[in-house]
Amino acid sequence: MLSKDLEAYFAANTTAARDELFELLRIPSVSARSEHNADTARAADWVAQSLSGIGFKTTVHPTAGHPVVVGEWRKAPKGAQTILIYGHYDVQPAEPLELWNSPPFEPAIRDGKIFARGSVDDKGQLYLHIKALAAHLSARGTLPVNVIVLAEGEEEVGSEHLAEFIESHTDLLRCDGVVISDSAMYAPGQPSILSSLRGLAYFEIEVVGPASDLHSGIYGGAVMNPAMALARILATMHDANGHIAIPGFYDKVRDWGDAARKQVRSLPFDDEHFRAETGSPALFGEQGYSTLERLWMRPTCEVNGLLSGYTGEGAKTVLPSKAMAKVSCRLVPDQSPEEIEKLMRAHVERVAPKGVTATVKHLHGGRAWRADLNGPLFDAARRALASAFDREPVITGEGGSIPVVGDFQRVLGAPVLLVGFGLPGENAHAPNEWMSEENYYQGMRAMAALWDELGK
Amino acid sequence: MLSKDLEAYFAANTTAARDELFELLRIPSVSARSEHNADTARAADWVAQSLSGIGFKTTVHPTAGHPVVVGEWRKAPKGAQTILIYGHYDVQPAEPLELWNSPPFEPAIRDGKIFARGSVDDKGQLYLHIKALAAHLSARGTLPVNVIVLAEGEEEVGSEHLAEFIESHTDLLRCDGVVISDSAMYAPGQPSILSSLRGLAYFEIEVVGPASDLHSGIYGGAVMNPAMALARILATMHDANGHIAIPGFYDKVRDWGDAARKQVRSLPFDDEHFRAETGSPALFGEQGYSTLERLWMRPTCEVNGLLSGYTGEGAKTVLPSKAMAKVSCRLVPDQSPEEIEKLMRAHVERVAPKGVTATVKHLHGGRAWRADLNGPLFDAARRALASAFDREPVITGEGGSIPVVGDFQRVLGAPVLLVGFGLPGENAHAPNEWMSEENYYQGMRAMAALWDELGK
Repeated sequence: MLSKDLEAYFAANTTAARDELFELLRIPSVSARSEHNADTARAADWVAQSLSGIGFKTTVHPTAGHPVVVGEWRKAPKGAQTILIYGHYDVQPAEPLELWNSPPFEPAIRDGKIFARGSVDDKGQLYLHIKALAAHLSARGTLPVNVIVLAEGEEEVGSEHLAEFIESHTDLLRCDGVVISDSAMYAPGQPSILSSLRGLAYFEIEVVGPASDLHSGIYGGAVMNPAMALARILATMHDANGHIAIPGFYDKVRDWGDAARKQVRSLPFDDEHFRAETGSPALFGEQGYSTLERLWMRPTCEVNGLLSGYTGEGAKTVLPSKAMAKVSCRLVPDQSPEEIEKLMRAHVERVAPKGVTATVKHLHGGRAWRADLNGPLFDAARRALASAFDREPVITGEGGSIPVVGDFQRVLGAPVLLVGFGLPGENAHAPNEWMSEENYYQGMRAMAALWDELGK
Repeated sequence: MLSKDLEAYFAANTTAARDELFELLRIPSVSARSEHNADTARAADWVAQSLSGIGFKTTVHPTAGHPVVVGEWRKAPKGAQTILIYGHYDVQPAEPLELWNSPPFEPAIRDGKIFARGSVDDKGQLYLHIKALAAHLSARGTLPVNVIVLAEGEEEVGSEHLAEFIESHTDLLRCDGVVISDSAMYAPGQPSILSSLRGLAYFEIEVVGPASDLHSGIYGGAVMNPAMALARILATMHDANGHIAIPGFYDKVRDWGDAARKQVRSLPFDDEHFRAETGSPALFGEQGYSTLERLWMRPTCEVNGLLSGYTGEGAKTVLPSKAMAKVSCRLVPDQSPEEIEKLMRAHVERVAPKGVTATVKHLHGGRAWRADLNGPLFDAARRALASAFDREPVITGEGGSIPVVGDFQRVLGAPVLLVGFGLPGENAHAPNEWMSEENYYQGMRAMAALWDELGK
């Protein structure tokens, strides 16, 4: 149960919390569009002023791109922890505008949903943190922990200057834990802690046969066709059961353990609903794993692109000189892109048919991330979420990557808590983006509870 | 031995035969270029006049494209055969001009080679026939057989109107045999009869998985990747020994017989020279067959093109919705494109992985061709070539297709003799095209001998 003084604050401030968020949502801070540069700067100032207003020492740091807002409150009792909250005030472009049922920068509530560009990604999830801090400071004049709020304006354009900012401000940002709310709950009413992100190793494989394209009549049958050779190479990467067949590929995969697997398996999941969402005729993946396990806990090897020879309309009887595939592996702890590169290179070399030369280029990569979910930050988060939502949080995973998580952990050496209040179907990067109004308020209460838990 | 009166004619007409050919070679009858339409028409007239000049009844038939020239001489003794000679008076474009060592339309002789665009393809090989006929008519005032000469002006642009012309002039063109000189001898001094052409069945295979491109992080591992599925399908088309593994694929392949294989194996052939010509790191083909057998006697299955997902620079983490391959099979007698289509379709359906839909579209096809090399036309040709070149002719094959051969055989029901006087390295479609001056004269003598042989 959240303490009464905080509950009273939230009860008295429901309308204000909504109206203030609406103010922020009305600012079209589209970081990708230079014609919105002034709006994006205005959103930074708005966040800075709201932090100053609740008693934070706030600075707007210019970068080569959009500014980074940092607010500090460091008056907690001696020995208290310092927690950094990360969020972003920039939003995706709103186009195509004609698909919106209400204007993207004029927030509207329908069916308990706050419709606006940036409502859930990430203004609503950023501002609920500021209101949770406000509750403490307003009701009690203090917080149980020191808090740094970092809000960037380039998340939707790749956080280009953030890693550099963190690296050059380690003293300012030093902390005992990072809290990020920029993800979704597993289901309505079901609080969730995101515990893992997959990494990536992205390759380009080129297979070269003849020195130039040949006539498939005159030469066909006497030299290895590089496109056929590429197909034969790619076909060796999985066995018939969807298991990756590159020798050594799974050697470094850390087992999630029975408890985590059991927990993932206990999540309600409808394969047919998921299949329909993809439009695929049937689901397919590694034998012995459920869909969620395949997406969150298991590495992949995918073809992202293929190109060879003649690809226009109709027929051209060319025996191509070369063939190219973009191939990328999603990685899980403790696979490293560098090791996977070595294994991929050795495998391709071994299976490449005679009569062609196959080369593997590593384009880029990043490590997977997984929270160990142990320690005071996670324990506090579990209790805070359970008290606010009246339900134990579940642990979820994510198949993609959020590079900033690795940056925080690597540079600041602090554990990262990913606790999001979005919901499935929220249209984060699409028309009619929405955030659940209830989650907005419950998120506030949960985060206010988190500070109490951390102060215990 | 060629009879003395004909030898005397050729001896007296060497310079004229060269000068006349040079006149024709100076006409830039580039059928692909409309700015040369007048030149192309002039070449047609030049050929018509040269036929009229030796006593042929000649007509220039307009078509929707360039005209067809037909000359007839039908005064042979009653019961004599009628032979149709086919050639073409149009030429390939000469570009890139800067790579020519002498102007393409100003013939020049160097090292016994007549350099000019169209020298070997096909003006020289067409005009040597006219001179062989001239020898008979000039020396004796008659020919032992009736002769039709058909010269088209669209061979280098796909003979678009020829099949239609043949079909609508069957009475005019009815004959007992067709002679075509538009190919090469196997080696200098080695007369050759081209006995086979491969056919074609050209497919487009499309593999569709998700309804639209997906994020490879969020969905990767739980649905079948269509590009990977396509690779797996293509990889089933051959075994490791280069044998095509589509069930039933070889069922209709007619055995060439030991004699023909032995003859092909007896031809001098340098694998390393051929490999260097292709630029491939090593030769590869169906086990148990030599390079020439692979090129001439065996069917193929080649990828001509591949396309899927992201193919630009750098990395894009897309899980593509679909993947496409252009796949074509070179066919040999008695495979038919229609049967191969059925087998390909059944095979792809059987091996397509779960989770994708694979479809096979047959874009176009044509049957292979093989002369049985029996009958008076072939016997006469063998004797004529042996007498003119003082060496027995060899039988060769060709891995590509010459559609007009099938058209003649199908519409006119006559055997086709492919006897060419080009040579390897003659640059037929490239800068510095040449024809051996000796072959030009020897070809004349051989064809004059052919008429004598057919009259026996």
